[in-house]
Amino acid sequence: MIEVYVKRGLNGWASFEFFVRKLPEKRNFLVAAGLEQVMMYLEGLRFGIEELSYLKEIGFSQDLLDYLAKFSFVGDVWAMPEGTIFFANEPILRVEAPLPQAQLVETRIINILHFQILIASKAIRVTLAARGKPLLDFGLRRSHEASAGLLASRACYIGGFSGTATVEAGRAYGIPVTGTMAHSFVLAHGSEEAAFRSFIDMHPQKAILLIDTFDTLKCARLVTRLYHEYLKKGIRIKGVRIDSGDLFELSRRVRKIFDQEGCNELLIFVSGGLDETKINNLVASGAPIDGFGVGTLVDTSADAPFLDCAYKMVEYERAPRMKYSTGKKTLPYRKQVFRCFDRKGLFESDVITTMDENIPSAKPLLVRVMKRGKRIYQDNLREIRKRTICSQQKLPPGLRDINNRVEYHPEIRGRLNRIFSNQPFSDNCPES
Amino acid sequence: MIEVYVKRGLNGWASFEFFVRKLPEKRNFLVAAGLEQVMMYLEGLRFGIEELSYLKEIGFSQDLLDYLAKFSFVGDVWAMPEGTIFFANEPILRVEAPLPQAQLVETRIINILHFQILIASKAIRVTLAARGKPLLDFGLRRSHEASAGLLASRACYIGGFSGTATVEAGRAYGIPVTGTMAHSFVLAHGSEEAAFRSFIDMHPQKAILLIDTFDTLKCARLVTRLYHEYLKKGIRIKGVRIDSGDLFELSRRVRKIFDQEGCNELLIFVSGGLDETKINNLVASGAPIDGFGVGTLVDTSADAPFLDCAYKMVEYERAPRMKYSTGKKTLPYRKQVFRCFDRKGLFESDVITTMDENIPSAKPLLVRVMKRGKRIYQDNLREIRKRTICSQQKLPPGLRDINNRVEYHPEIRGRLNRIFSNQPFSDNCPES
Repeated sequence: MIEVYVKRGLNGWASFEFFVRKLPEKRNFLVAAGLEQVMMYLEGLRFGIEELSYLKEIGFSQDLLDYLAKFSFVGDVWAMPEGTIFFANEPILRVEAPLPQAQLVETRIINILHFQILIASKAIRVTLAARGKPLLDFGLRRSHEASAGLLASRACYIGGFSGTATVEAGRAYGIPVTGTMAHSFVLAHGSEEAAFRSFIDMHPQKAILLIDTFDTLKCARLVTRLYHEYLKKGIRIKGVRIDSGDLFELSRRVRKIFDQEGCNELLIFVSGGLDETKINNLVASGAPIDGFGVGTLVDTSADAPFLDCAYKMVEYERAPRMKYSTGKKTLPYRKQVFRCFDRKGLFESDVITTMDENIPSAKPLLVRVMKRGKRIYQDNLREIRKRTICSQQKLPPGLRDINNRVEYHPEIRGRLNRIFSNQPFSDNCPES
Repeated sequence: MIEVYVKRGLNGWASFEFFVRKLPEKRNFLVAAGLEQVMMYLEGLRFGIEELSYLKEIGFSQDLLDYLAKFSFVGDVWAMPEGTIFFANEPILRVEAPLPQAQLVETRIINILHFQILIASKAIRVTLAARGKPLLDFGLRRSHEASAGLLASRACYIGGFSGTATVEAGRAYGIPVTGTMAHSFVLAHGSEEAAFRSFIDMHPQKAILLIDTFDTLKCARLVTRLYHEYLKKGIRIKGVRIDSGDLFELSRRVRKIFDQEGCNELLIFVSGGLDETKINNLVASGAPIDGFGVGTLVDTSADAPFLDCAYKMVEYERAPRMKYSTGKKTLPYRKQVFRCFDRKGLFESDVITTMDENIPSAKPLLVRVMKRGKRIYQDNLREIRKRTICSQQKLPPGLRDINNRVEYHPEIRGRLNRIFSNQPFSDNCPES
């Protein structure tokens, strides 16, 4: 396509918007994430000799190669800051650039935004379920390859997690890193006692001991003995982790053993196949659990492993563009999303308009983040995490309910409403 | 953990095996994949100044930093060649190395193998459904970030796909690359006719035209007119793509229009939310479709987005090791998997034994691929793809049935059988 655009001089200014068509069944809202990586991608996009010679080899023309050899993104980008809550059909990001540029970056932009939105939106549900108890990301091993593992840690942190066990994600993004021990650590030592002593000696004040390798309750008693022994030396074992079995029953029994043996300050962490539903049940049932390690089901967003999202042309040379494909109609024009709050500052509604309309006293969510190829917007991961937590807290309880579906549809107003007044919007339009 | 091992001198030779505990409900077998990336990782694993200074910053000891600064993997690796069919509880790969080394690589090895096995095992099902019709990978955009997109193309190719639309996967792995046009290409031209003429001029002999931007049937008639016009100039339009709507109905109507208008050689490709079930139904119902573009549902393995897999210590200093965690018991000892064939060369059974046992006339599936840190095994992606297709063809029809579950359990024989004769194996043992 780029080859055609370049050859035909189809170089007019085009606007493409990224949005999610329809939310998965178990998502009442989504969380914007991935903008930092999109900006880094756009600023850094170049074509090297290896890439160009491969393209030549598979038959692309010299015109295209010349174009790519001097490629440097010159467009504008508008976006919702990461951590912003959003809904179906709201543009999260818009690229305004010469057509070949705006088209070339389509797949990678979707690839970046889709994944981090997916994981941040799953993670916030886990955060809601945990009701303040700390959550750690354990998911690297079953993430879909390397970059997914790292960016899942980032997206989980945006969605309210406390930290990650992925050390490289700590280095790359400044996320707090926390580790634990594996069953093989116990097996290598030959006995739980030997393994625990090794670990405590190395991490005197932060040892979390894995107690389910053989017999969880027997091991909990061993931990109480070690607790008192080390306490005499001024060393406080921090707690234990249970990674299998009935976590409700085991946590209660282990807590009882600890309390009976005067180890009230020992904490109990659990892991193993956890998601928001299981955590919600554990917390609701009053299981004496102090924190959760969460991996596979969140880092793969297992109940909804993809979003129905798109990056669609909405204007070409300032004229509106839309497609009519069955079930996939798009809203034309460059758009703005306004968020309206009530007097208490709580979420009231979202309104989608064209860019040149305005909703007084409402907050425009899309801001310009790149201008003529240069980023003019900086954000900070801790701020982004706060933004998620704050904007989620402003939502009505129904939207924050992780167990029940609430479909919220932003209002389409002004010129867009006139266009769509007689044509059902894709979201409401059954596929024929 | 590594810090403890290094400080305590727990440096004995350890063996860890990677296996899948239980197959997802809709998988009767899995396909080994990812070995090439594991070997590259192990050969290349080093720690640079940036990594070491970060580890120092977050509190790791000088002993660990010194150990990592001179890290170079010195172990042996045994593995099933990529493209080998395998079943639950069969080791796919074994690392034999000094304990800190074998432990350090755990997470990344799982991360690499898990993902490619997941996708290759999904892709082979799509290949079975398509019954010889070509399949193209369109999945980069909704893959979980960048490396997932590239390696999904590789895994789809291993699982029998013909090619990919991800150009970088073509460059990186030599997979055949095929492109198509997007709806925005049509929108940018203002009309389908202008867009198609542009595209045909650029790709005279391989133009596949996207016909569902506005009205699929009307557009099919436009294509017949262009077909005859260009044919007079010696240019043969290759075919069309339909990306939305009822693909069965539309493909039949479009085929009818093409045949009525003397365009019998025009091919019909379809895409849009396809997986093995939908493709199976389309092929079974006789829809006149010549090839499929498959993306999201395969590249995220959406019906089973993760595998219950593990990398577990099975020996330490030549002594067996096993854990007893509820529902997660492991088989001790370094193991071999033997595949037994009948007289016609068809699959008969798999037998798991310890490494020092033998099953005469059966084929040992694990081969040594790295020796003392150096790879001693080379493979080739085309050979791997053939291996998948051939080994799948040797399976009994029941195991190849994509619509019905058949649970095949390899036989555990010899010393392992004696160990487990009175203890139910994890797979059969209900979680308490």
